[in-house]
Amino acid sequence: MALIDSLATTARISRVFSDENVLGAMLAFEGALARAECRLGIVPAMDFSAVNFSAVRVGDLAARALRAGTPAIPLVADLREQGLAQAHWGATSQDVVDTSLMLLLRECRAILEADFLRIEAALARLAEEHAGTVMLGRTLLQPAPPVTFGLKAAGWLAAVRRGWGRVASRYREGMFLQFGGASGTLAALGERGLEVSAALAAELDLPLPDAPWHGFRDRLAALFAAMSIYTGTLGKMALDVALLMQEGEVAEPGDAGRGGSSTMPHKRNPVGSMLAVAAARRVPGLYASFLQGLLVEQERALGGWQSEWTLAHGIVQSLGVASESMVEVMEGLTVDAARMRANLEAHPEVFAERERFGADDAEYLGCAEAFRVRLVKGGA
Amino acid sequence: MALIDSLATTARISRVFSDENVLGAMLAFEGALARAECRLGIVPAMDFSAVNFSAVRVGDLAARALRAGTPAIPLVADLREQGLAQAHWGATSQDVVDTSLMLLLRECRAILEADFLRIEAALARLAEEHAGTVMLGRTLLQPAPPVTFGLKAAGWLAAVRRGWGRVASRYREGMFLQFGGASGTLAALGERGLEVSAALAAELDLPLPDAPWHGFRDRLAALFAAMSIYTGTLGKMALDVALLMQEGEVAEPGDAGRGGSSTMPHKRNPVGSMLAVAAARRVPGLYASFLQGLLVEQERALGGWQSEWTLAHGIVQSLGVASESMVEVMEGLTVDAARMRANLEAHPEVFAERERFGADDAEYLGCAEAFRVRLVKGGA
Amino acid sequence: MALIDSLATTARISRVFSDENVLGAMLAFEGALARAECRLGIVPAMDFSAVNFSAVRVGDLAARALRAGTPAIPLVADLREQGLAQAHWGATSQDVVDTSLMLLLRECRAILEADFLRIEAALARLAEEHAGTVMLGRTLLQPAPPVTFGLKAAGWLAAVRRGWGRVASRYREGMFLQFGGASGTLAALGERGLEVSAALAAELDLPLPDAPWHGFRDRLAALFAAMSIYTGTLGKMALDVALLMQEGEVAEPGDAGRGGSSTMPHKRNPVGSMLAVAAARRVPGLYASFLQGLLVEQERALGGWQSEWTLAHGIVQSLGVASESMVEVMEGLTVDAARMRANLEAHPEVFAERERFGADDAEYLGCAEAFRVRLVKGGA
Amino acid sequence: MALIDSLATTARISRVFSDENVLGAMLAFEGALARAECRLGIVPAMDFSAVNFSAVRVGDLAARALRAGTPAIPLVADLREQGLAQAHWGATSQDVVDTSLMLLLRECRAILEADFLRIEAALARLAEEHAGTVMLGRTLLQPAPPVTFGLKAAGWLAAVRRGWGRVASRYREGMFLQFGGASGTLAALGERGLEVSAALAAELDLPLPDAPWHGFRDRLAALFAAMSIYTGTLGKMALDVALLMQEGEVAEPGDAGRGGSSTMPHKRNPVGSMLAVAAARRVPGLYASFLQGLLVEQERALGGWQSEWTLAHGIVQSLGVASESMVEVMEGLTVDAARMRANLEAHPEVFAERERFGADDAEYLGCAEAFRVRLVKGGA
Repeated sequence: MALIDSLATTARISRVFSDENVLGAMLAFEGALARAECRLGIVPAMDFSAVNFSAVRVGDLAARALRAGTPAIPLVADLREQGLAQAHWGATSQDVVDTSLMLLLRECRAILEADFLRIEAALARLAEEHAGTVMLGRTLLQPAPPVTFGLKAAGWLAAVRRGWGRVASRYREGMFLQFGGASGTLAALGERGLEVSAALAAELDLPLPDAPWHGFRDRLAALFAAMSIYTGTLGKMALDVALLMQEGEVAEPGDAGRGGSSTMPHKRNPVGSMLAVAAARRVPGLYASFLQGLLVEQERALGGWQSEWTLAHGIVQSLGVASESMVEVMEGLTVDAARMRANLEAHPEVFAERERFGADDAEYLGCAEAFRVRLVKGGA
Repeated sequence: MALIDSLATTARISRVFSDENVLGAMLAFEGALARAECRLGIVPAMDFSAVNFSAVRVGDLAARALRAGTPAIPLVADLREQGLAQAHWGATSQDVVDTSLMLLLRECRAILEADFLRIEAALARLAEEHAGTVMLGRTLLQPAPPVTFGLKAAGWLAAVRRGWGRVASRYREGMFLQFGGASGTLAALGERGLEVSAALAAELDLPLPDAPWHGFRDRLAALFAAMSIYTGTLGKMALDVALLMQEGEVAEPGDAGRGGSSTMPHKRNPVGSMLAVAAARRVPGLYASFLQGLLVEQERALGGWQSEWTLAHGIVQSLGVASESMVEVMEGLTVDAARMRANLEAHPEVFAERERFGADDAEYLGCAEAFRVRLVKGGA
Repeated sequence: MALIDSLATTARISRVFSDENVLGAMLAFEGALARAECRLGIVPAMDFSAVNFSAVRVGDLAARALRAGTPAIPLVADLREQGLAQAHWGATSQDVVDTSLMLLLRECRAILEADFLRIEAALARLAEEHAGTVMLGRTLLQPAPPVTFGLKAAGWLAAVRRGWGRVASRYREGMFLQFGGASGTLAALGERGLEVSAALAAELDLPLPDAPWHGFRDRLAALFAAMSIYTGTLGKMALDVALLMQEGEVAEPGDAGRGGSSTMPHKRNPVGSMLAVAAARRVPGLYASFLQGLLVEQERALGGWQSEWTLAHGIVQSLGVASESMVEVMEGLTVDAARMRANLEAHPEVFAERERFGADDAEYLGCAEAFRVRLVKGGA
Repeated sequence: MALIDSLATTARISRVFSDENVLGAMLAFEGALARAECRLGIVPAMDFSAVNFSAVRVGDLAARALRAGTPAIPLVADLREQGLAQAHWGATSQDVVDTSLMLLLRECRAILEADFLRIEAALARLAEEHAGTVMLGRTLLQPAPPVTFGLKAAGWLAAVRRGWGRVASRYREGMFLQFGGASGTLAALGERGLEVSAALAAELDLPLPDAPWHGFRDRLAALFAAMSIYTGTLGKMALDVALLMQEGEVAEPGDAGRGGSSTMPHKRNPVGSMLAVAAARRVPGLYASFLQGLLVEQERALGGWQSEWTLAHGIVQSLGVASESMVEVMEGLTVDAARMRANLEAHPEVFAERERFGADDAEYLGCAEAFRVRLVKGGA
């Protein structure tokens, strides 16, 4: 974690994108390719376990990647220098870069799913416990007819489920081996290209696509769209929490090191919510830049995929910090039902509708409860 | 079509978003609500067929919408003034605005699908006819090992199918009635809220969601993500065409009024491609603004959904113009196979790989053809 | 004003970008060019006053512009059809489009400046009247040590002055004639190109740039950056107002047609603030798309400037609606000093700092007052 | 430099934003504050030179910053633990964060200016040397009437000067001390606040603003707008270079480690241009996210300024890599005038205009030369 980016990531996501792990993903590609091609009799056996990248060498790799315009060129040069003369046989730089991104994203999936399951459980509990906790609604930030906190939590719950559901679904539709060679035709492998592709896909446990996708980034764009939307939903929940904290209706948990003020010792700041809101405000711009990369020039882009690593990094970091923050916020959220009731009673004007329409007390929140139940149960 | 926006839309999309049609969609909601509530004995019969909105009145509606902060308030005022005293019973402004957006988007679907089917057919034909048309690949804009034009067209074809497939899928998952009343609890309808909702959904032939979604815009965001991505794919195809036109390898059709230059009568400009590229460069920013709207404050937003009509309009217009333009470009595309061959032969250096890897001619493009066949056949 | 975009513009800005006015700006360019070239003996006299564009023709112009990829081609065709055979002599389409955009933006300047002056006056008044109105500060949305409402208004005032100051400054630096012909060399005018340029600039009262700027959109980008930033500042003020309204400390004026609710007659919504917040949330994406247009391909872009009219339209509309809304909000803002005091007293914990640091009452807000005075006085 | 972000930054910019340097900037603030307050008799002398932050502690700081929601809280805690009990007296977290950002941005200025001066010199030379090098113009990517390479370079030169000129100007207008305390009133310092502010500003050699600007980020937004626009201009130059390389008219220099291909040893890729194009396509989204941060909630934002460090980092990195890349490209650019002439002659149709307008050879490029001279000379 770099200090300058410290509010925009988490320790767990940072580990996935650490130099060591990124290098490991690239080596996983090269090693799997070497094994696959060796088994098919195309290249001799190569011993990747002997490859030695000292810390200095890893640091140097970034600088050489910048000069080469891709991390693959210096990596392959290093492998050859270490005696693996036929490493990278038939592959192109973008094959390494894209496939290693797949491997890194797959690692992030487990982190994100674990967070989702905890948020889901916390929200399901809140939605049940507060089925009868009546509170002010707010529209355009102003007092509005009452809702229940259970309905609010159920709305969050259903949205979070849809949010993660889309991410999971796009993962299933979007994770693929990239292996195409210079122009995406695997020309260097002659008629054995498909055979090597299939073996490589099996080695890496990645699905084999219909064809190389150097020029078509739409599956990645669909995955990052889902991540951006899910981050936005987490940001909405966070903003709701911060707004409710204004009036003392809920409070974030005050664990060690969290939520203090450098000048006001007694103050409790909505720090978890703030981090999630910040992530959700930041991600749309990152995603807009990613979308520009769809305009690939011909077989491989001038600047498009070369920007994707850093944008993917930024988007996943944003979702990671929003998600980790909301786990803590929702698992530890304090709800002050008495304060909710008091705030509602301070705004008798919001009952205008009730009087005007003539409903009596018993039935006034009947639909709210029905909606709550439907949201909790799930499905559409 | 406003002149200032004339390159950013089409006649067909403009008709969907014309004042008359937008008003019609809002009246469809109000009329359906009145019929549903009348059938359930909640309001008396109201005759919407007698409602009279002269052209002047429609123009005035926009100005009054701006003052009210929503088009629903002046519309309901007009209905009441025309004697429909119980129109809009139990509904809130956002119910009208959101449901009418659904109806408008549903109309656009048919236009977009018709275009898709034509693009798909044109690309399928190109992908077959040019299976054996060898040409230069280009990577980072520079000459690269050969591909076939059939493979290129097949890549476009598969991407366009995925693009439209996502849009169609998000339409299925994202079209819902909006009906929640002031705080999303249908409080004014007491225990009859769900019954009215179901009747209203049936009247409008829109699915009934689990609950009102005033505060949760993720389904819309998923639909517009799919539209943005599909627009990007169309833009990629368009950019490819314009780049190939540079070197005389393909040409856009030169139909009436298209592609001329105000100073160079003989010049043929890639106008269709230009319009699609422009749309694809424009849409990411529009979508980024839409994503910001996910951060809804509590039950209903301060500024979020109120921006959505114009952003949705912009995104659909962009996809509409990209899609309509690429129908014309792809149906009329001229391919100069001899020129492709000549340009390839002018770059013997791109065969360096062939010599280095020792492949012979017969097998050099074997994988390219296999990929082409897989792409045309479809299925991931 | 189109109904679908009714919350995203104003009547005054809409008039500038109406078909008639846009056509007028294009004709102003063509007429001025004809007069300049006639005076220099290059073309014969042409009578633009006789040009007849019926309403139908104007509507048709948009459709033909879409086919041609520029409104200039059908316009020039119409002029020639009406007997002005040598209209547009030496010019290219982008000359018409860019120069007419300059003329339209110049018209908007007057509207925006008038709004600014009213906002400035209203804020200056609030900043003086409430120099002693003590209220809660809020940080991260939570209660914080006290400020004065005068200081808050003075902060808005200084920011609005900087905001408009930048817009005015970029107008001075960015308004230029565009006149370059096909490749920006005025080749068709031979050695008389500069002479015609100077005469044309004088006719239109636009500065003559160093050279045509078809390929360099940075001056426009600087102007729209300033507009986007100023819109953001107006949005910040608006968000502050809406947040203060939550707790009854201020209220927007409730003029005719503004701020009502379709279900709650007594409710007062922050409609003006909502419109400004919506504009400020929308504009960053529009501006991001504009920035992409800086990447002009060679002499004239493929899709870049062709997108600018609609993006410029969107950005100016956004600033226009934010600015017009905040005039009304700030001129009519009700401030409830007693409520501010009461809300402050309900949060004794925010005085923790005072006790801890040992300051006494008299000096506690001394710096706040000094800052207020400096902000009101202006200058860096 | 992190490997995952290696194509999106440079070694020089990375050093500015390294953990050590960022920590140094924060300590510079705290140290200057302590000295200023000690000199004014407010706090006792504190010895910052004895502060010991081992590497482990710096790494830990990022993690604790994430928990606290700001790097200032753990930093101040560390200082107090090391015996500097009255460090940070009267300041708030955002004072440290904002002022240290100013200090970091000031360091970047020198790097960016050095690059600018080299690009400017290289372009001035190209603009003179190629005053008479005639070549094809290109509009909408297609062949167009001739220009000179000198005119093209002069256009780049003037745009780069404007680009850097704006950045330099916004630096002058936007660099300010931030020092306001919890609510921006310096309440903790009583009547001595202004005195301490002035002393602190002098210590840090930063201008003193009219008032603290926690809630007003427009000056920063103006600086980053200028950086984004300048990056776009560099990207335009880069795109031009890559497009000209397609047809062999120019070539990037092929220094060590740059421009190779992992499969085609003889290939020369436009790597410098690619990096600059990638940066220019990436930055609009980053800037759009920054603009969202203008909507500060009241005295200090919920998520706004907390996102700025990482966005500022991304924008400066983008400009840094575009700028460093274009130094190398432009200083080493090879221009093939004979190839330009040959390509022009292959397109006789672009002279259609010349014949139609009847200009003779001698005067045909007269205006182009006049424009070139005006652009080189500069001014407006």
